[in-house]
Formats: sequence, C-alpha cells, structure tokens
Amino acid sequence: MKKLTLGIDVGGTNIKLGLVNNLGKVVGRTSVSTRPYRHSKNQLLGALLAAVRSLLSEQGLKKENIQGIGIGLPGLVDPVHGVVNFLPNISGWKNVPLKKILETRLGIKTFLENDVNLITLGEWKYGAGRGIKDLVCITLGTGVGGGLIINNQLYRGAGFVAGEIGHMPLNETGPLCGCGGYGCLERYVGNRYVLQKAAKIFHRKNIDFIDIRRFSRQGNPRATLFWREMATHIGNGLAGVVNLLNPARIIIGGGVSNNHKYLFPRIRQVIKQRALKIPASTVKIVRTQLGDDAGIIGAQVLVNHEI
Amino acid sequence: MKKLTLGIDVGGTNIKLGLVNNLGKVVGRTSVSTRPYRHSKNQLLGALLAAVRSLLSEQGLKKENIQGIGIGLPGLVDPVHGVVNFLPNISGWKNVPLKKILETRLGIKTFLENDVNLITLGEWKYGAGRGIKDLVCITLGTGVGGGLIINNQLYRGAGFVAGEIGHMPLNETGPLCGCGGYGCLERYVGNRYVLQKAAKIFHRKNIDFIDIRRFSRQGNPRATLFWREMATHIGNGLAGVVNLLNPARIIIGGGVSNNHKYLFPRIRQVIKQRALKIPASTVKIVRTQLGDDAGIIGAQVLVNHEI
Repeated sequence: MKKLTLGIDVGGTNIKLGLVNNLGKVVGRTSVSTRPYRHSKNQLLGALLAAVRSLLSEQGLKKENIQGIGIGLPGLVDPVHGVVNFLPNISGWKNVPLKKILETRLGIKTFLENDVNLITLGEWKYGAGRGIKDLVCITLGTGVGGGLIINNQLYRGAGFVAGEIGHMPLNETGPLCGCGGYGCLERYVGNRYVLQKAAKIFHRKNIDFIDIRRFSRQGNPRATLFWREMATHIGNGLAGVVNLLNPARIIIGGGVSNNHKYLFPRIRQVIKQRALKIPASTVKIVRTQLGDDAGIIGAQVLVNHEI
Repeated sequence: MKKLTLGIDVGGTNIKLGLVNNLGKVVGRTSVSTRPYRHSKNQLLGALLAAVRSLLSEQGLKKENIQGIGIGLPGLVDPVHGVVNFLPNISGWKNVPLKKILETRLGIKTFLENDVNLITLGEWKYGAGRGIKDLVCITLGTGVGGGLIINNQLYRGAGFVAGEIGHMPLNETGPLCGCGGYGCLERYVGNRYVLQKAAKIFHRKNIDFIDIRRFSRQGNPRATLFWREMATHIGNGLAGVVNLLNPARIIIGGGVSNNHKYLFPRIRQVIKQRALKIPASTVKIVRTQLGDDAGIIGAQVLVNHEI
C-alpha cells in the first residue's frame, strides 16, 4: 500500500484532518470542533488524538501506512525543535513540545509548521504556484498572514516568523494595530476592520461580505468604493513586497479572496502604478487553488521534504 | 601561485579594480575615473580593458593566474545571461553583453552582478555578516539600495531585481519618487532629499553631512532633530522588512552610515517599537565593515560561487 501523509490543520474554529497521497490528493478526512477545547490544552490534545485514531481505523490503516504527520498551527511555532510557542486564539498553548507528544503517543514521525506556511507549501507544490521558484502567499481573513517560497524552499526566517505581510506598515503614522505596531496592512484590511468600516458606510450593524457582494451586483456605488479602497490598501502593501522580493507570483487566499472579481483588477493596477517597472511586470497576482484543503495538502509537502 | 579574483566595481564616479585572494584580502588595486567616458560605452570599455591589463602586468600576472572576474554595475544586470540591461547614471549602456565581451577580449571567465548585491556578498562572507544565514544589506547614498542573503545564498528574485528596499513605500500617499512610485523610502532618506531638507532647516544652500555633524557636536537641537527624523524614516522602512523577512542581521552601509552614531540608536528604537516582538528581538542592526572594498571583495565571493 502506498504511504500516506496525515495532514492536520488546526484553526480557531475546528481542526481538519486529511489523509493525503503522494500526488497531493486528499483520500480521507475528518474534522473536530476546536471550540469546546479552547481553554484546555489537554482536552484539545485528547480530542486530536482520538480523531487521528478514528480516521486511521475508519480507513483500515495502521501507523505503518502513514509516512508522517504534518500539522499546521495558527501561531508561533518552532519547526526545528517541534515546539508550539504560542497560539494567540487558543489559550493554554505555550511552549508545548507537540512533536514529541504526538510521536510518543502515536508512533508516527511528526512535523510542525505555522498554518500559513503549510498553505504556502500546498499551493506551491500542487496549487496556484506549481513550478514557481519564488513566490509569496497571502491569506486575507481576520488576520492577514503570509508565507514565502524562495529558491524552491519555504523561507522561515531567523526566528521562524518570516512572512508577516499583515504587519508591514502602510503608513508612518497610522492606527494602532493589535500587534503593537502602527498602520499595519492588517489594520486596514483585516476582516474586523473592513466590516466595521462597511457597517458605517452602509448603515448596517451586522453586515458581511455576502451583503456587500449583493450591493455590488445591484450597482451600489458605495460598494464599488468599498472594494476599491480595500484593494488599494492591499496593492500598496504588495507594491513594497514586489519591490523588495521581486517574486514571480503572489497567491492570494483566505475568505476575502472569494471577492477577487472586485479586488484583483484594482490590486494589479496599484502594483503597476507604484512598484518598479521590472518587478511589477514580472509578478502575476492569482487566487489560491486548493481552497480549504491547502493546509492539509501542504502537510504532505512538508513531511516529504523533512523525512 | 594561488589563484586570484579580479573584482571590478563600476560606479558613477570611478571604476575600482582589485585583485582579491581566496581569504578575501585585496592584494593589488587600481582605479579609473568614469567621468570622461560617461557618454561613450566603447571608450569606457576601452579604459576598463586597459586598466585590467595594466593592473595584471604591474603585478606580473597572466590571465592564467586569475580564476575569474566579478564585476558590479550600478543598474539592471542579468547575471544569468551576462548582460547589462541598463545603467541609469552612465549613458549608452543598454543590453550590453558585457560578460561575452570581457571573456572574448581578456580570456578570463567573467560574472556580472548588481553593485549592491556584490557589496552584500562581500559583507556576508568577510564583513559584518560573517556566519549569518539570513541577512539584509542596505546602502544609504544618493540612491538607497539593498541586497538579500537568504539561506546562505544571494537572492536575486524572478527578474534579478530583488532587494529594492529604497523603493518600499513608507506612506500610501507620499511625494513622487524618481522611480515613478510614491512615498518610497529613498524619497525620504536619499542624500539629495535629506540635504535639500537640511538646507532649509539650517538656512544654508550647500550644506553637507560634515556640516550637520559639526552642528551636532555643537549641540544644535535642529541637528538632533534632523538625524532623528531621518532615522525614523529608515526605521519605519526597516520595520516592514523585519516583519516580512525576519532576518538575523541588517547591515547598513553607504556614505551616510558614517553618521551611525546619530542614526543607529533611533533606528533600533523605531524597529523595536513598530515591528513584531520576535523578529524585532531577533535582528541586529550593524554597520558595514569592508567600507569601499566591499564590492571588489564581494566579486571574489561571486566568482568562487559561480566557477
């Protein structure tokens, strides 16, 4: 039997588990809600182990059939030592030697990575970045995350936190960001902030992106302006990335990228206007292709690279 | 006889040539003024060839003693095809196959690179970046240039123009930059702009950095403010670089870095205030160590890597 990878994508809402073959296809999956275990590290760990065991037995698999586990986590991870340093949205996870715990309990080699880095690996190998040596992946959501592939390798940086595109400042004096900095890209285009702005623009408290898309289809000029401003901020941030890194491709993902029709033309225009001629004309701006599976598919890439 | 590298650093004012041994030491040197040949490609080429030949014969060397030529150029270079695409400050250099020309005329293997990339290679291997896997080099002068070492390799980008830190925007709406963008770092801290500003602040037309240093020593508060504002702009730009790339070191060079005493403490403070905690605490901000020789020493690193 061909060896499979077990990909695990830990999110604030749920944990997705997938069995991925060596062609990057998901051949079995399950998920666990994170919410009941948000405040107890051991309960979350227990639920995770139970989910792994039930997925394997359901598929008639033993640990010998799994070449490795790749796990993506929403926070600070030390992939070299296999330690979860800190998860901002799941309490109790501080300096947890998760690699060692899972290897001891499951007997399967395990590798940890930041969740956006796993998505980046997945998109690079099997998605929108296939065959591209140098690329940037950005995820737009409540947070704005990023991952970098440089010379066909995931680039982690000296402290394993490279790729924080969401915290590149757009302005020298700007609004305070949750990170403690000022004027960060995330502070302009993170979901919370754009929806707060939309609530004011459209005079509606609980507005969401579906509403705004509907307004756009109805030809509402305020909706046009809303997308234009958001795309301008994203384009301004990416112009700096384009000039600094001269990537061949920028892959945009996350829930908000479903609005690519309203965002991407303006993002491309701003990059063309503001970035240097050569890097602006070298770069292609595209959507992610693997959707919600990017992380678990990326786990296969990580494990195959590490083992 | 131990093989030597011939390093050539082409600048707008002069061309420096140096014989560099395999310990990164310059063991012979000469230079040619660029000015008389600024408008004729062939004359500049002739002067360069003559300088190479006279340096070799002066040192009793033959082409067999030279393992390769590394040449740094102030502009757009295609290092893979060995072509000088464009030099903004030396006219007549458009799509010149300089590698082929020099190899044919001199019979020595030749490698081309952007000048700041050569400085970066030199500082990484023999200067302020020794032993560092991931670093950023920034040169402050009329232009603000940059070079990136990632995973112990020079990172060139998809169009060979990576590292343009000087053209990262500091503000979404900012003054027009020579590159066609707006609010670029260079537009705030390039020599021309800071000296224009200084002329106003100090009510003196032809002020230079030596004057401003003198004012600082005299305790002039306007001089203190001048450096502080300049360092704040640099720090704001580098905060974005730090969050995106999480480098272990940022090496600052160029003429302006002679004022490190007035600039560096504030640059470090701004990075600490604005960048994320981990990358801000990982990075060390240091001066270049090789001074004007960084480019020709970097040529040795380039040639040794390529041959």
